[in-house]
Amino acid sequence: MKQNIIILTEGHSNTHTAKTACSVIRYRTEDVVAVLDSTQAGRTTQDLLEVGGEIPVVACLDDAPTANTLMIGIAPPGGKIPESWRVVILDALRRGMDVISGLHDFLSNNADFNAAATASGAMITDVRKNSEATIARRVGLNEDCLRIHTVGHDCSIGKMVTSIEITNGLKAKGQDAKFIATGQTGIMVSGDGLPLDCVVADFVSGSAEKLILENQQHDYLVIEGQGSLVHPSYSGVTLSLLHGCLPHGLVLCYEIGREKVTGIEHMQIPALAKIKEMNEMMASIVHPCPVIAISINSSKVSAEEAEEHRERLRQEFGLPVCDIFRHGTDELVDAVLALKKTK
Amino acid sequence: MKQNIIILTEGHSNTHTAKTACSVIRYRTEDVVAVLDSTQAGRTTQDLLEVGGEIPVVACLDDAPTANTLMIGIAPPGGKIPESWRVVILDALRRGMDVISGLHDFLSNNADFNAAATASGAMITDVRKNSEATIARRVGLNEDCLRIHTVGHDCSIGKMVTSIEITNGLKAKGQDAKFIATGQTGIMVSGDGLPLDCVVADFVSGSAEKLILENQQHDYLVIEGQGSLVHPSYSGVTLSLLHGCLPHGLVLCYEIGREKVTGIEHMQIPALAKIKEMNEMMASIVHPCPVIAISINSSKVSAEEAEEHRERLRQEFGLPVCDIFRHGTDELVDAVLALKKTK
Repeated sequence: MKQNIIILTEGHSNTHTAKTACSVIRYRTEDVVAVLDSTQAGRTTQDLLEVGGEIPVVACLDDAPTANTLMIGIAPPGGKIPESWRVVILDALRRGMDVISGLHDFLSNNADFNAAATASGAMITDVRKNSEATIARRVGLNEDCLRIHTVGHDCSIGKMVTSIEITNGLKAKGQDAKFIATGQTGIMVSGDGLPLDCVVADFVSGSAEKLILENQQHDYLVIEGQGSLVHPSYSGVTLSLLHGCLPHGLVLCYEIGREKVTGIEHMQIPALAKIKEMNEMMASIVHPCPVIAISINSSKVSAEEAEEHRERLRQEFGLPVCDIFRHGTDELVDAVLALKKTK
Repeated sequence: MKQNIIILTEGHSNTHTAKTACSVIRYRTEDVVAVLDSTQAGRTTQDLLEVGGEIPVVACLDDAPTANTLMIGIAPPGGKIPESWRVVILDALRRGMDVISGLHDFLSNNADFNAAATASGAMITDVRKNSEATIARRVGLNEDCLRIHTVGHDCSIGKMVTSIEITNGLKAKGQDAKFIATGQTGIMVSGDGLPLDCVVADFVSGSAEKLILENQQHDYLVIEGQGSLVHPSYSGVTLSLLHGCLPHGLVLCYEIGREKVTGIEHMQIPALAKIKEMNEMMASIVHPCPVIAISINSSKVSAEEAEEHRERLRQEFGLPVCDIFRHGTDELVDAVLALKKTK
């Protein structure tokens, strides 16, 4: 049955906290029938989240009668579910709607939710739930498959979107490329992948390696990055993923104006040159793995400021620099194709 | 009731694979009544594992009648239990012996073990089992408490032992110091700590931070390191811990002659200077965190070779260098005291 999704973002409908909602709307537009946020009802998702055109924001489940699936549309730090959402989730399950969640706080661990799902025949999918137990071995990697990995100077700056857009750009040029999802939103968008930040710590790099081994029949893999090497809360996931997927080239994602570490506002993010140096050092232990391009997120500044900033970064790093939404992905895709030629 | 421990190392009684056994024998000598390895029965643990004096190695549980606790004494990659051990564990549980395990493969998930434990009143303790769900926040750290952290060029090279010995050395000089265990063996030895490699990836640095926040009434914390920044299987745990405990100084642990990454034998370990550079770079994002001393493990070479190597490292790095078993801990402890004076 086709999923008709209503995305719950109640009280958190901004592009940062509701990044899961934004990406699902962007990449599965045809599956999304509404966003549920009673504080914003009557608006469109385009107006509220800068994506989705005329998809309506509604106040309750009754206002989206065609919906058969409720998706949790936020990714709060720590992955806890807002208390007030429990009643909406329970209501959806009682109506027989499937519920999809990417939170660390598994819905399927809740007895009330399970009872409601069993009674109505609804299905609960916790995207982050897993029992991965693979150690990275660095055996069997196909070096004919070019591995590109997105890294960033902070979390939630556009690594997933950059990865998807590079993949789509490669495909548009006739290349055999695949996007590798490593987080809950990427999995919801692409339909496969592994939620690396919810794997037991010893097995994160092994899980990343497994994703490579299972997909390296493609000529290009574009592997979604997680967190940042300088974000104290998530840097371990970042490094496990970097070492597990063993990339040949990095695309450095950067939001103009982002100066403080998300969630740790007293901590300054180091300069981009330092971020680049750290990533290249940690990525280049067994073979050289350079940053080949910079993907800027310029959504908070004017087109003129974005252009100035872009030019400054080009001068500083001598690399292709672009905002995929303002400038398209050609420069990034060309950098990937150029790297492939050197192999 | 006092624990009288028999340690199971069946078929794996070497100082590397049985490192859990070795450390428990070293630091809880009075609690260990025997080691169980039928392939080595009749020998002493001193002879077999270079520690423990006259503690006997026995062939079966009947040969250690005073034992009331069976401890799993190995830490294999991936933490899986050897199949042949299940019968011994079941036998112990049926006799009413408590069983303590540090494996990823939880004994308490096994229905047969649980049934046997319930019937006999025995207790199963899975040291790695946890439900940690704390994100690192970098709030509330006491900068009057000096945080020293051991890091290394590979896993299983002596970071835990170095941490314990520095702590004991500080205490011997009248200082208020505490060892912070971050892995299963450290927890078995010290009685507290958290098994960071078995925490859900997003929460590893938060768990490390929690250990600091709960113990920073001491003047010194010496935090056990895990893995290595260049070990692809475990580097994420290493970095989460490094960023979670936010040390003021590092002690770099190094085994003379270790050239290949443990478990990934086709991978060369980078030069020690590179390891030092990486660790200092990743540790120094918010404040300078230098390597203040090098702890060498010279167990595989002669005293003369150890001395030559020690002198070479002193020349190269201009730092105190010693093997705690050959040279004592004075140089390491003095380096910690000197760092404290600069704060």
